[in-house]
Amino acid sequence: MSRLWGGRFASAQDPHFLSFQNSLGFDRRLWREDIAGSAAWARALEGAGVLSKGEREKLERALDELGRELARDAHAFDGAPDEDVHSFVERKLGERVGDLAKKLHTGRSRNDQVATDLKLWLKGALYRLDANCTELMAALVALAERSVDVALPGYTHLQRAQPISAAHHALAYVEMLARDRERLADACDRLDACPLGSGALAGTAWPIDRAKLADDLGFTRGPTRNSLDAVADRDHAIEAVFAATLVCTHLSRLAEDWIFFATQEAGFLELSEDVSTGSSLMPQKKNPDALELVRGKCGRVLGHLVGLVTTLKGLPLAYDKDLQEDKEALFDALDTAAACLAVTALAVRGARWRAERCAAAAASSYQNSTDLADLLVAAGVPFRSAHERAGAAVRRALELGCELEALPAAERARLVPELAALDLARELSTARVLARRAVVGGTAPSAVRAELKRWNKELALHAAQAPVTTPR
Amino acid sequence: MSRLWGGRFASAQDPHFLSFQNSLGFDRRLWREDIAGSAAWARALEGAGVLSKGEREKLERALDELGRELARDAHAFDGAPDEDVHSFVERKLGERVGDLAKKLHTGRSRNDQVATDLKLWLKGALYRLDANCTELMAALVALAERSVDVALPGYTHLQRAQPISAAHHALAYVEMLARDRERLADACDRLDACPLGSGALAGTAWPIDRAKLADDLGFTRGPTRNSLDAVADRDHAIEAVFAATLVCTHLSRLAEDWIFFATQEAGFLELSEDVSTGSSLMPQKKNPDALELVRGKCGRVLGHLVGLVTTLKGLPLAYDKDLQEDKEALFDALDTAAACLAVTALAVRGARWRAERCAAAAASSYQNSTDLADLLVAAGVPFRSAHERAGAAVRRALELGCELEALPAAERARLVPELAALDLARELSTARVLARRAVVGGTAPSAVRAELKRWNKELALHAAQAPVTTPR
Amino acid sequence: MSRLWGGRFASAQDPHFLSFQNSLGFDRRLWREDIAGSAAWARALEGAGVLSKGEREKLERALDELGRELARDAHAFDGAPDEDVHSFVERKLGERVGDLAKKLHTGRSRNDQVATDLKLWLKGALYRLDANCTELMAALVALAERSVDVALPGYTHLQRAQPISAAHHALAYVEMLARDRERLADACDRLDACPLGSGALAGTAWPIDRAKLADDLGFTRGPTRNSLDAVADRDHAIEAVFAATLVCTHLSRLAEDWIFFATQEAGFLELSEDVSTGSSLMPQKKNPDALELVRGKCGRVLGHLVGLVTTLKGLPLAYDKDLQEDKEALFDALDTAAACLAVTALAVRGARWRAERCAAAAASSYQNSTDLADLLVAAGVPFRSAHERAGAAVRRALELGCELEALPAAERARLVPELAALDLARELSTARVLARRAVVGGTAPSAVRAELKRWNKELALHAAQAPVTTPR
Amino acid sequence: MSRLWGGRFASAQDPHFLSFQNSLGFDRRLWREDIAGSAAWARALEGAGVLSKGEREKLERALDELGRELARDAHAFDGAPDEDVHSFVERKLGERVGDLAKKLHTGRSRNDQVATDLKLWLKGALYRLDANCTELMAALVALAERSVDVALPGYTHLQRAQPISAAHHALAYVEMLARDRERLADACDRLDACPLGSGALAGTAWPIDRAKLADDLGFTRGPTRNSLDAVADRDHAIEAVFAATLVCTHLSRLAEDWIFFATQEAGFLELSEDVSTGSSLMPQKKNPDALELVRGKCGRVLGHLVGLVTTLKGLPLAYDKDLQEDKEALFDALDTAAACLAVTALAVRGARWRAERCAAAAASSYQNSTDLADLLVAAGVPFRSAHERAGAAVRRALELGCELEALPAAERARLVPELAALDLARELSTARVLARRAVVGGTAPSAVRAELKRWNKELALHAAQAPVTTPR
Repeated sequence: MSRLWGGRFASAQDPHFLSFQNSLGFDRRLWREDIAGSAAWARALEGAGVLSKGEREKLERALDELGRELARDAHAFDGAPDEDVHSFVERKLGERVGDLAKKLHTGRSRNDQVATDLKLWLKGALYRLDANCTELMAALVALAERSVDVALPGYTHLQRAQPISAAHHALAYVEMLARDRERLADACDRLDACPLGSGALAGTAWPIDRAKLADDLGFTRGPTRNSLDAVADRDHAIEAVFAATLVCTHLSRLAEDWIFFATQEAGFLELSEDVSTGSSLMPQKKNPDALELVRGKCGRVLGHLVGLVTTLKGLPLAYDKDLQEDKEALFDALDTAAACLAVTALAVRGARWRAERCAAAAASSYQNSTDLADLLVAAGVPFRSAHERAGAAVRRALELGCELEALPAAERARLVPELAALDLARELSTARVLARRAVVGGTAPSAVRAELKRWNKELALHAAQAPVTTPR
Repeated sequence: MSRLWGGRFASAQDPHFLSFQNSLGFDRRLWREDIAGSAAWARALEGAGVLSKGEREKLERALDELGRELARDAHAFDGAPDEDVHSFVERKLGERVGDLAKKLHTGRSRNDQVATDLKLWLKGALYRLDANCTELMAALVALAERSVDVALPGYTHLQRAQPISAAHHALAYVEMLARDRERLADACDRLDACPLGSGALAGTAWPIDRAKLADDLGFTRGPTRNSLDAVADRDHAIEAVFAATLVCTHLSRLAEDWIFFATQEAGFLELSEDVSTGSSLMPQKKNPDALELVRGKCGRVLGHLVGLVTTLKGLPLAYDKDLQEDKEALFDALDTAAACLAVTALAVRGARWRAERCAAAAASSYQNSTDLADLLVAAGVPFRSAHERAGAAVRRALELGCELEALPAAERARLVPELAALDLARELSTARVLARRAVVGGTAPSAVRAELKRWNKELALHAAQAPVTTPR
Repeated sequence: MSRLWGGRFASAQDPHFLSFQNSLGFDRRLWREDIAGSAAWARALEGAGVLSKGEREKLERALDELGRELARDAHAFDGAPDEDVHSFVERKLGERVGDLAKKLHTGRSRNDQVATDLKLWLKGALYRLDANCTELMAALVALAERSVDVALPGYTHLQRAQPISAAHHALAYVEMLARDRERLADACDRLDACPLGSGALAGTAWPIDRAKLADDLGFTRGPTRNSLDAVADRDHAIEAVFAATLVCTHLSRLAEDWIFFATQEAGFLELSEDVSTGSSLMPQKKNPDALELVRGKCGRVLGHLVGLVTTLKGLPLAYDKDLQEDKEALFDALDTAAACLAVTALAVRGARWRAERCAAAAASSYQNSTDLADLLVAAGVPFRSAHERAGAAVRRALELGCELEALPAAERARLVPELAALDLARELSTARVLARRAVVGGTAPSAVRAELKRWNKELALHAAQAPVTTPR
Repeated sequence: MSRLWGGRFASAQDPHFLSFQNSLGFDRRLWREDIAGSAAWARALEGAGVLSKGEREKLERALDELGRELARDAHAFDGAPDEDVHSFVERKLGERVGDLAKKLHTGRSRNDQVATDLKLWLKGALYRLDANCTELMAALVALAERSVDVALPGYTHLQRAQPISAAHHALAYVEMLARDRERLADACDRLDACPLGSGALAGTAWPIDRAKLADDLGFTRGPTRNSLDAVADRDHAIEAVFAATLVCTHLSRLAEDWIFFATQEAGFLELSEDVSTGSSLMPQKKNPDALELVRGKCGRVLGHLVGLVTTLKGLPLAYDKDLQEDKEALFDALDTAAACLAVTALAVRGARWRAERCAAAAASSYQNSTDLADLLVAAGVPFRSAHERAGAAVRRALELGCELEALPAAERARLVPELAALDLARELSTARVLARRAVVGGTAPSAVRAELKRWNKELALHAAQAPVTTPR
């Protein structure tokens, strides 16, 4: 058993308890950050006069070697006796540099150490999640590019409402993902202050230059400003999981829409076989499993959010062991969101609109009745009255089993005499109905193309700016 | 790649998608139940004339062998190419009996199969969780046995209120756990109907005797009565996680109480070192980690509950792939609750009251002021007035810095003249204050002993009735 | 300002704080229970010798009068200065009986009082919620009665799977509601022990016969057995909200199914106008608002569950003011569930299947391909091979754009030569496909009728046993 | 009954359904925003040529009058027959300007209207919540100003760890609130795009200048860019409730800390009577109700967050009635957070440290043992060894029942011979222990004073910049 404490303890711990409280099984994931943080701490200790230059160099070299070993060996942690990744790294270091390793923890506590490790990890994870968002946005924009002229029924209350461009539908999700990216960036920026040097709770007693240390580790906001808060704060974990929850909420809506579009009833969308599965019993089935799993996993990520907040609620300052619960929830939430984004992108890239079925559906069910009312308004009828009369026209058309533009001349003359001069078939055609909605953000092809141009530009800009991806 | 479908598919699945939707990593845990369910299905198919006696015997033998192999070999699933445990078992069976294995899935779907597997597993898990509850109840009762005469301050609003027996405090948690056990039993009983034979969604088309099949698998409520519901229902998973959530909520309260009792400020309770840890920085620390983790894990289990309900919300009938999300949440919730119960029992068994500190605290802070009011009532003062006058006495005692029973005679004569004849030191002593609360459920030693007797009887009864524990 | 404490306080409370902590705005709903509990307490105090017979009678009469006044006057609480319903009742009582009212609180605390009030209220509320469940079950059974012969596509993954009877679909929800009713009954039974007499936390110091008191108030499980637990326990509130959450989860699934059935794409179901709304802009719209709200409110009730558990998590014993948060969540959760059940029943009663569209859809999309495989099995092909060959037949039929039973003879001879002698059109007809699933719980009309008979019997039994409804 | 649709409806709605779906009871709160949005829409319609200048002026005047009436009359909505605030305003407008009111809804839908109203309201609410945060920060900073030299035990795991300045503790919460303010600001900024002009889902068909309209209504990000997203998006509501959840999580931790500090056991903090209450039974009680309610309400707000996400999960585009559930949750979450902040500020302003008890506690329980280890490090012992030896010294001191600095000379010589020359009483005094932690963010008085200076500057800046508060 390897542990970093115990001088005051007379007896050993119960093995069940030790296994219950062991975190190496999951916090091993932080080994890169623990090594990077330890190296920076060694440099800071040199600055504070605790380590000599030679000692610091030796420690850094050993940490570097350990890092390379761990990167190579997938089984390095198997059977390790340590209670957490910090103990593991310190023990491994001791195997390399002997007693010198015992100096590294001077003025540091696992409380500020793990807070620092986790923030470093989180910055990388948020960066990767952002890349996943961008990938899906690109897939949606590409789909939209080839769908501007696909007319689709637009829905409210899942009842056909007004025709829309299929590209417009895809771009709605691009908007959501753009907000998600903002939230990820905000979360990343807000957490960017360095806890290291906060000690267990009260600040380190050694003359560490925390500003320099923060800079050394790449924290753009400098050191944290209150040691109690620094070791007790998990806002960043919660905020990251929240951002992931909204990502997944958006994906669950996309999944819901597309599962509906892919039903035999709608028949608007063909999903590629490579994201579909069959049935062990029913030979004909082709199921949208990818999208269903994406929809389902929204609950999982929300669950992690609830778990984290509930765990934090009512915790006294500063560090409590309850906080160890932060990691599994955080890791799984971000992994899940990333996987959902990637799989959705896969589905989007393989999807194909069945344009004729879409068009037929877009042209039916009186989705042009608002335009009939608008035509009445243009002819001088106040909207509320025009709405009522268009409603009556729909009722009559329902009785006759025809669309509005096919109402018999007599009915038309009776119901909307003001529009006698108009070519209703043309005025109420899907093309005209779509084209009328040319305001910013509207579904007219012209407006959609303007948005496409904007998104293409933004994504190109993003691609140009993107730093080299981290190796993980 | 091993899959149970695909006749209609022209192309292969994307590997990322396949890994995303693979469940073998977690549903392998159901292998015992999948084998038991398959054997029962083979017998049912024989009854329906689909399999001959010889075929059925051959299948059963092979399933039995497979079960023994899997019980032996911890690595049996490593690198398996199957998408789930059902495919795994069917493939392994095929390796043993060749084409005969292809007959076993007749009239069965993975939808009713997994519903059955999960219910079978859940029954065992609930049984084991119940045993964990009982273990903790026994530990608390044992602690109570040796604490009847330990007087402790009782709190409301975390302010000292009235003295209580430490045993009474322990038994409060026994009450909660007893309700938990009822909930576990109810959940176990409610789920006890067999889904097998429901097919994918519409019922099997073969003349299976479902009543007999249900009986064969030990389901006491017979077969489920609606095939759509049978494959779509996850109430039992949610209800089990809910029961586990309440277990953990109770444990979180116990943890909170005991963490407070173990502070230097209270100093009422000594936790054993075997469930405590130290600090990597601060040599003097002895931390109640076990209890903190227990308190923290309440959030985790609640999170799983939220995840499950959110996943189920708004799902169309019958089976949807979203339901695959049920298992990890369920497994982890029940595992976590079980571990928390076991670790808490460990903490309870090792704990020791510091009786003198407890008694001193119980006797201070005017916790006998209600009794002063009650004495006034006995002397004819209406309670509301007695309450007000006892409050005034407290205010005066606070000013003088003494306890009520130590008020100077003059003050006493002024404030509570009715009680002139009483030996207030005796009447307001902790012993008297405790003894007065002798109603059923009160904290008087007599009442507490009566409850202890009841619990000991009940636990003995339980121990006598408990069936031989399942081997897992 | 009216408050039941304050003797020890030198200064007054801040008005913002007083308004923050005031609960009369919502706990006034407990006035009936507070009066009933107070009357029972008066009787118990008489038994304990604290009140004379005359005093008790006077108090009971005054409480009775107050009850009648409050039942009459909807505005009785307007502008009341009291901090909670208990203070209100005590003040009103004082207006009637003067100083005698001051005796009623002897040996009682608001902690055991509110616990008792809430349990009494909850029993009534659970009873009423159960009645709402039964009402919806009856509406669904009535719908099923007229839908046995309506064939509907059955879905898995929202892809057509196998035809089902529309009655079978309705009865799936009856099963869920039956489980809900069990859960409500369990919750009601489990809470049925009386906290009154537990005092603030330690038990009352007066010789109250708690068993008699519990009986007097109609608690079937007698008095609670631990005073700390009795005032700190809110399991019953949480369990009731959980039961309501599952009710709403089931309703959200029904809503989702029906919203889909009512789309123009499916067109299977006509919702009545009396539970639909229109659009302020689009004259043609008829929206399933009732069902959408029902679906949405599932989240609200789950939210209350999370709120309650999170509030309870980590609370020290015994009573803490945090517990005041129990009421609003509980009230709204049960009100919401009740309203959702009632509105869903309204929707069910007004709904009409469009049987021809249903039948056409049920007969298409290869939903009989499992039966083709089963026919091959009957002809001696192992199921797994039969499944593959039926899948190939589906693929061929898709290419040809025909259903399986319409495959050209040559194709049929090539793909399924074993079935040469069969009348495939008949064997694969919806009627035959349905009829084959005649096992218990299957969708065959015979099986569905058997279930209908069972449900009708059970509902009749319930109606016969139902006690006279409480007036609220 | 007043409704804005119905032309196509032949029959009336069921009254229970109408009451179920009515939202006027809560969305009336949006009347100011609905009027402001309507006036802006009138101006936009004039720009689009739909209204004449005279018509627009008449409408604006009438809206203005209506606004003044509603501001005056608290009962203006009582008994109103309208289904929502939009219908109410349109009806009231009609009473003033007759048929002209019927023109106002041209090209607008309640979908974009309510989205706009809600965003306008939310901006104001977030602004007010930010002010509440600042108020509490100021109260905490003021408390810190008078507490720099109050030494308090610092805790990890609720065990005494190292002494801290009481001011440092208060400032930890200031840090949290500062992050909260950032989150509120981010949420406010992100939502600041105008949905109006998006119509029901597809964009308005009239040539509205949406950029000008957005500007007119004060939206700094211009118009929303996708009409489907604009009416379906509730990210802002969820994000605001999330920010409120973190606010309340922080407050729950402060409450937990202070409730502990105010126990008789700790006795560090005296809460003012004006935020405390007493007991109806126990005359001596003074309970920290304000803080308990604050702690409890964290669950309530988290519950609303869960409710909102669950409601949104899996909703199809664009508008669904489920979205009506957004308002009550949002309103209550923000109201609750605001009230909790205000009441906590009240508690902070009235609180008083009991400095002597604090100091005594800070100087005990070996909280200086890390400093002993550090002194050994300074004397050349590697930290890990120093830690172990300090632990042994603690163990010995525990046996002897003394503090470290009071260890007998012989023990000291044996345990820490390297420190023979040091004045341990001085080196291990609370003052020295505090002073050593002078790094940025440390608890040394010098470091704390530096932070106080920073916060005072920031709050002053904020006060100077704060715009005139909105009247509500």
